[in-house]
Amino acid sequence: MRQEKIKIAIWGFGAMGSGMATMILHKQGTDLCGVCDNYDGYVGKSIFSLLNLNNPYDHDVIIQKDIMSMLETAKPEIVLLATDSFTKSAFPKIKLIIEHGCHVISTAEEMAYPKANQPELAEAIDQIAKQNKVTVLGTGVNPGMMMDLLAIVLSGVMTDLTKFDISRINSLSPFGKTVMEEQGVGLSQAEFMNKLENKTIAGHVGFKESAMMIADAIGLDMESFHQTMAPIITEVDRSSKYGFAAKDDVCGVNMKAQAKLENNIDINLHHPQQIEPQLGGVKTGDYIRISGSPEVNMAITPEIEGGLGTIAICVNMIPHVINARPGLKTMIDLPVPRAIIGDMRKLIETE
Amino acid sequence: MRQEKIKIAIWGFGAMGSGMATMILHKQGTDLCGVCDNYDGYVGKSIFSLLNLNNPYDHDVIIQKDIMSMLETAKPEIVLLATDSFTKSAFPKIKLIIEHGCHVISTAEEMAYPKANQPELAEAIDQIAKQNKVTVLGTGVNPGMMMDLLAIVLSGVMTDLTKFDISRINSLSPFGKTVMEEQGVGLSQAEFMNKLENKTIAGHVGFKESAMMIADAIGLDMESFHQTMAPIITEVDRSSKYGFAAKDDVCGVNMKAQAKLENNIDINLHHPQQIEPQLGGVKTGDYIRISGSPEVNMAITPEIEGGLGTIAICVNMIPHVINARPGLKTMIDLPVPRAIIGDMRKLIETE
Repeated sequence: MRQEKIKIAIWGFGAMGSGMATMILHKQGTDLCGVCDNYDGYVGKSIFSLLNLNNPYDHDVIIQKDIMSMLETAKPEIVLLATDSFTKSAFPKIKLIIEHGCHVISTAEEMAYPKANQPELAEAIDQIAKQNKVTVLGTGVNPGMMMDLLAIVLSGVMTDLTKFDISRINSLSPFGKTVMEEQGVGLSQAEFMNKLENKTIAGHVGFKESAMMIADAIGLDMESFHQTMAPIITEVDRSSKYGFAAKDDVCGVNMKAQAKLENNIDINLHHPQQIEPQLGGVKTGDYIRISGSPEVNMAITPEIEGGLGTIAICVNMIPHVINARPGLKTMIDLPVPRAIIGDMRKLIETE
Repeated sequence: MRQEKIKIAIWGFGAMGSGMATMILHKQGTDLCGVCDNYDGYVGKSIFSLLNLNNPYDHDVIIQKDIMSMLETAKPEIVLLATDSFTKSAFPKIKLIIEHGCHVISTAEEMAYPKANQPELAEAIDQIAKQNKVTVLGTGVNPGMMMDLLAIVLSGVMTDLTKFDISRINSLSPFGKTVMEEQGVGLSQAEFMNKLENKTIAGHVGFKESAMMIADAIGLDMESFHQTMAPIITEVDRSSKYGFAAKDDVCGVNMKAQAKLENNIDINLHHPQQIEPQLGGVKTGDYIRISGSPEVNMAITPEIEGGLGTIAICVNMIPHVINARPGLKTMIDLPVPRAIIGDMRKLIETE
């Protein structure tokens, strides 16, 4: 096992970034060496006071506003980037980190399979990463795991297949105000349809990434892709910590996608998200059914919690990213994720 | 994509080997170039007549008894070895293939994690493979996937965990006479207990391999391991194609194992196998429950069919084995398995 601890920095101290910080502080063999965020309420403060945790180190970790200054002083070998949903907005940040000689793990949904929506940026990231001999990975619970990687893994026991039916039916209740807005919780039906028309409602980002990851994993081209978004209307008043939807208003978003691959293979993705799903008689879970030989019929109930799951998978992939050959990687290129419970350095290859 | 097809040979033309042959014949980009088996009823015969399939090639594939002669004439780049359950008996065969410069995928249960029961042989295989610049992998449905790799993958979304409860509850009804004997189907209780005492009943091979794969994946040492075997007694007559158990006799084997890892982490494995489980009110399936944060509660119903699943995962891992760095690898070292539907050469790295 190598001597030096793994020096990790975090860029973006929101729900994901601060959760990763807490997780890393509980992992042996790691050194959370720097944090960057531009929120004035955080800048200059110690993460230990913000997280209300004891400092296990002989150094403090003060949130810095300037990324260059953070990278120069903290000298991380890997940076967890938790700032964006889209490759386009994450790209300049990823480039900056790479050119500083650090590996990157991005939480941006599109970065889970960037060639799906940004093939040129994906190519650029791969080139710059190779030039700088570092590795870049995008991951998360979805896309990154529940609606793509897990289905791919399960297909590994099949001799042939014709169709993927993948559903993630989850509750939005644990999420905060931003997510409520992004998913249109509390809007009237008319307001929702208006936002849908103006494309000012985000919904889930990642279906095309999931579909193309599956297509490439099984060695087929994607011939067509189509997705739809519709409001979920509640028949009773629903109330969560940060959300409220009155009877007949919008309590969440129902998204569906169909991808057609070569060989007439179908991928159907279904992802309805709402607050208090039990009030609509909905049982949450992650469901994967693959038609073929042998059939696969999987259910995870309740669904894997999105926030915690994303935090975990980003941190758990750190050693795989450090071990990988340089370039842009995706979850299908690297060894399987796993919870790292022992010293993280044990998983670093030393040859 | 590379030009030359992937040249694959099979050693052992039993249920697994012949199933892999059939699967490979349906995969683009592959060339099943040779088969070796020592059963006189097969030797000298064309696999196409034995499998009752059309020959898609411009060459025949005749089953050869002598492995050296098969390797010399067929010139495979990878050999699927489907002859043994134990590393000790597979070792000389693996060594011979490696020294001929070919990669190996072994179906031997112990080879799924050979260091669990044969650390010295595992080390020797790793050395010889590196010297000969080839890669060796052991895999299968169980061990190799349902009671180990899949649990490891699912743990990837967890920040912390305390316990794995993994059950594979399956039917023995599809299996043949050999399996009925190995699992004691049809014996009286006294006969079973006698064989148990004399250690002449095989039961499931692979619990220690599964437990140690999980332990290493999450970075912890295994502190203790204990397994038990007991007969499953039927309360009614049960009859399958190749098996029969009268009321009060043995219809299968119930195996359990407990492994304790560092940090007080438990792995509980439960694998009851029987003919016609529905006659005992048993619902078959693969079940994984991981206690921790967030909780994971997975069910695959019915269970993944063992024979077909093993055939599939061995063939599906071929490109990963060819791409890997030389040495002995396990399922936690390589990228995730997946059904290969398109041309298998698409998954071969060309850089």
